Amino acid sequence: MKFFNNDDTKVFALGGLGEVGKNMYCVMHNNEIIITDVGITFPQGDLLGIDYIIPDFTFLKNNESKIKALFITHGHEDHIGGIPYLLQSVNIPAIYAPNQAVGLIKRKLEDRNIQYKNLFVYNEDSKIKFKHIEVEFFKTTHSIPDSHGICITTTNGTIVTTGDFKFDFTPIGPMANLHKMAQIGKRGVTLLLSDSTNALNEGMSISESKVDEALSDIFTRTKGRIIIATFASNIYRLKHIVDTCKRNNRKIAVFGRSMDNNIEISIQGGYIKHKDIFITPEEANQLPPEKICLLCTGSQGEPLAALSRIANGNHKQIKLKNDDIVVFSSSAIPGNALSISKTINKLYLRGVKVYTNTSLNDIHTSGHGSEEELKLMIRLMKPKYFMPFHGEYRMLKKHADIAIECDIPKENTFVLSNGEVLSMYKGEIKKEGYIQAGDVYVDGNRIGDVGNAVMKDRKIMANDGIVVVIANIDTNNNKLLGLPNITTRGFVLVNDNAELLRELEEIGRKSIVSKISNHINYTEIKSEIVNQLTNYIYDKTGRRPIILPVIMDIKKDVKAKA
Amino acid sequence: MKFFNNDDTKVFALGGLGEVGKNMYCVMHNNEIIITDVGITFPQGDLLGIDYIIPDFTFLKNNESKIKALFITHGHEDHIGGIPYLLQSVNIPAIYAPNQAVGLIKRKLEDRNIQYKNLFVYNEDSKIKFKHIEVEFFKTTHSIPDSHGICITTTNGTIVTTGDFKFDFTPIGPMANLHKMAQIGKRGVTLLLSDSTNALNEGMSISESKVDEALSDIFTRTKGRIIIATFASNIYRLKHIVDTCKRNNRKIAVFGRSMDNNIEISIQGGYIKHKDIFITPEEANQLPPEKICLLCTGSQGEPLAALSRIANGNHKQIKLKNDDIVVFSSSAIPGNALSISKTINKLYLRGVKVYTNTSLNDIHTSGHGSEEELKLMIRLMKPKYFMPFHGEYRMLKKHADIAIECDIPKENTFVLSNGEVLSMYKGEIKKEGYIQAGDVYVDGNRIGDVGNAVMKDRKIMANDGIVVVIANIDTNNNKLLGLPNITTRGFVLVNDNAELLRELEEIGRKSIVSKISNHINYTEIKSEIVNQLTNYIYDKTGRRPIILPVIMDIKKDVKAKA
Repeated sequence: MKFFNNDDTKVFALGGLGEVGKNMYCVMHNNEIIITDVGITFPQGDLLGIDYIIPDFTFLKNNESKIKALFITHGHEDHIGGIPYLLQSVNIPAIYAPNQAVGLIKRKLEDRNIQYKNLFVYNEDSKIKFKHIEVEFFKTTHSIPDSHGICITTTNGTIVTTGDFKFDFTPIGPMANLHKMAQIGKRGVTLLLSDSTNALNEGMSISESKVDEALSDIFTRTKGRIIIATFASNIYRLKHIVDTCKRNNRKIAVFGRSMDNNIEISIQGGYIKHKDIFITPEEANQLPPEKICLLCTGSQGEPLAALSRIANGNHKQIKLKNDDIVVFSSSAIPGNALSISKTINKLYLRGVKVYTNTSLNDIHTSGHGSEEELKLMIRLMKPKYFMPFHGEYRMLKKHADIAIECDIPKENTFVLSNGEVLSMYKGEIKKEGYIQAGDVYVDGNRIGDVGNAVMKDRKIMANDGIVVVIANIDTNNNKLLGLPNITTRGFVLVNDNAELLRELEEIGRKSIVSKISNHINYTEIKSEIVNQLTNYIYDKTGRRPIILPVIMDIKKDVKAKA
Repeated sequence: MKFFNNDDTKVFALGGLGEVGKNMYCVMHNNEIIITDVGITFPQGDLLGIDYIIPDFTFLKNNESKIKALFITHGHEDHIGGIPYLLQSVNIPAIYAPNQAVGLIKRKLEDRNIQYKNLFVYNEDSKIKFKHIEVEFFKTTHSIPDSHGICITTTNGTIVTTGDFKFDFTPIGPMANLHKMAQIGKRGVTLLLSDSTNALNEGMSISESKVDEALSDIFTRTKGRIIIATFASNIYRLKHIVDTCKRNNRKIAVFGRSMDNNIEISIQGGYIKHKDIFITPEEANQLPPEKICLLCTGSQGEPLAALSRIANGNHKQIKLKNDDIVVFSSSAIPGNALSISKTINKLYLRGVKVYTNTSLNDIHTSGHGSEEELKLMIRLMKPKYFMPFHGEYRMLKKHADIAIECDIPKENTFVLSNGEVLSMYKGEIKKEGYIQAGDVYVDGNRIGDVGNAVMKDRKIMANDGIVVVIANIDTNNNKLLGLPNITTRGFVLVNDNAELLRELEEIGRKSIVSKISNHINYTEIKSEIVNQLTNYIYDKTGRRPIILPVIMDIKKDVKAKA
């Protein structure tokens, strides 16, 4: 058997393994590459100043000529958010996406003034053929309309990627196409890549219809204003809230840009009806409470989101009243529990009733399948090999165990990292080699110029601040001119610590003088400054700020050498 | 549209609607009838002396020449138990059953000395064609091997009956054939008859593999003897217990005839291996406790079953020891809760540890699917019409609601009673007419000679006993000869109630004398005896025994007129 040659088919992830986010999976056969999804990740608390994380596109840049197309499974940010960045750095001949995703992608490209002509809509019956690779689709159920799984066939075998899915036998939208899945499974699947997000949850996820009932129930028994915080990305939930408001004669004011965008595109796509139900916040304030629903972002307690500002009492348009109720139609994304409970506490303090999702109160359900749903997918596809994707390692690992329980041989399951390559040759698959993969930080509009070192600095500064030491050296006679200047940010209060700062000047002076000789070595001087000040400051304050020495050579027109 | 004529296809149940038991479903097209299953029901507490209940075969007897074949879905008593009785009264040209069921049916016929040559084995790939009707099969998961659903096609449409099923994605036996189900569904199903037993249970049933883990766990941590009570019909559970004993070096002694039978047939069929693991009770008593497993019937607290006798301390071969443990790998069949808890209490009193099935301790799971599994079946088959079967009315009703949630129009669901007929004509179905259906009691070997009146008497006697009044009348001169004789059973203690009995003689005498005239009317006399004694006895004792007057005409050779 030959591997990693020109006749095999390579499968690898540029994102999505070991993480929930920035999904990007590639299949390469001969001189053809097709890509599935290009997502972003929203950074967790310790990635300061970073707006997004996107996959490392280096491998694609280096193999640009082979890329045939990008396929999008559905329109969530962790599957389409990276498209503007990909298009800016790599030539993509065509993007195929389902209808709702196309709407969201267009909006995204317009916002960034990116011109792109080759964005095409596919549907379940589409079949797209390249020289070596053929691509088909099957409808799945997820929290956004038009979610699809993708079936990729090469001469070496068939690869199915599920995209994000759950099985919901009473969905709000259309049913997943069980019959097409069974058909593909019967035809034969070599490798299944399947969504691991909720692999740790036993049983089956709750149907969106049960959430529907629970929310309707709240609407029926509430007289005051209803404020609902939910995920802007859960289109079926938004659709349901709109329909329920319609039935209960409530108008809706929307707060939050992502919520606005998703609703607008869903109305255009026909997924959400009753356009006339939406009113401005000003109009809402003119209506009696029982006629109002306020739909807002902020279900994760994000400090700048509408709900947090309402809870804090500093929202410009919305002031809470006693008979308001607030519904969190959402779950806590790990890491957000604290900020959510802060927001809830503030809401209670302002005397309003708060509903959150509990076992008694099904006002939210996940868009991702639990254990039994994952098993059903495996049983329908009955693949020869299995690669869990879309999840942290513990989720991938558990999903692999689930597959083993479903009769996939242990040696045929692959829990991989981004960049690890599977080689498929004549129906057999082996792990072989690596390609470059990793996190690229997006800070504002700058892509990739924020590396790990920057992040480390930001983290230190966030904890202990910075001490800048500026010294003027006359290189004509190798003399330090005066005391070094000490400037700090985020370190200590300058006014209360004049003594300490004077001591730092003196230590800086000594460090420089000790290293000045006939031949000036800037690196050596700076290193000495950093060492001496670091130690002294730690002894005095217990802190480890960044020490940034700047040596000015006054002979050379005062040019800084930082 | 024409209905109930010779061109339509009729579908009806002779048993299984409004009850869990005696399943029997028929499809009739033109001059062809095929039957699916012939079950028995075990009587509940208030059917005294009745061994089984079987369906009323009158309609089949009257249409005997049309019957083409009987198809069996699986080998449980509520699907095959009525076969000997059916064969005794109706000519059945052929019986098709899966392998395990054939074994059980053969045993059943041998036990009753019934010769029957036309019993054939089908498998999933079999296809059996009659003139107007074609029959196919698909593999399902249930608690016994070789369970199948049946797909019946006529020119008017396709009828699928699921048989008993659950979806278990990690079964002990083979997987249900999801792909064939999807294929049948895609081809088009006009009417789906689906198992309603657990329609009231939300979510998904627990996998047999989880039970496997929980039982293994008990085996690993137990040093004493393990006594397991389970359903003799749950072959996978028996298989698992055998395998676990093998792994843990325990031998098995079996108690209970149905358990013996099922194990023997399962060994013959290859479903259970390790024949050498089985030992006699005597051999078991020679082994150390850690080498022994006692497998017995009686999980429902049946007073005559092995487990009850062990608990009572009056089992001939098995005496409980302190470090024995007893495992109920079963659930309580409704109505048995009291007798089960009595048995458990007795076991605790004898100092042994008892494990029962709880949410913490998955040592049993049902063979029938819960709500989400029922939905999956409906989604796979996507029938035009739906008829829940195999269940009490509340189960059928709930199952119909589930179907409506799964997009079956309400008017296309049929919650029927045994004997109600559906007429299918060119893909359309309507309820139309009735055929004779009902309960036939089997008491010992006598079929159908125990009717409702008998059952009513038995019930009264069970509560208050019987008072027999025997009077001799000389019809030559219309005179009562002496006092009537009073004999009682189950009424009062005769020795302690001589006074009362004498009073009854006197009241009997008066009643007779008051009605004797020139022309003797036996009915009138008996009625008077019954009325007078009933009232008197109720006044004196608060009881209402059956009063059975017998008038002997001594002129006519002392012939009784009861």
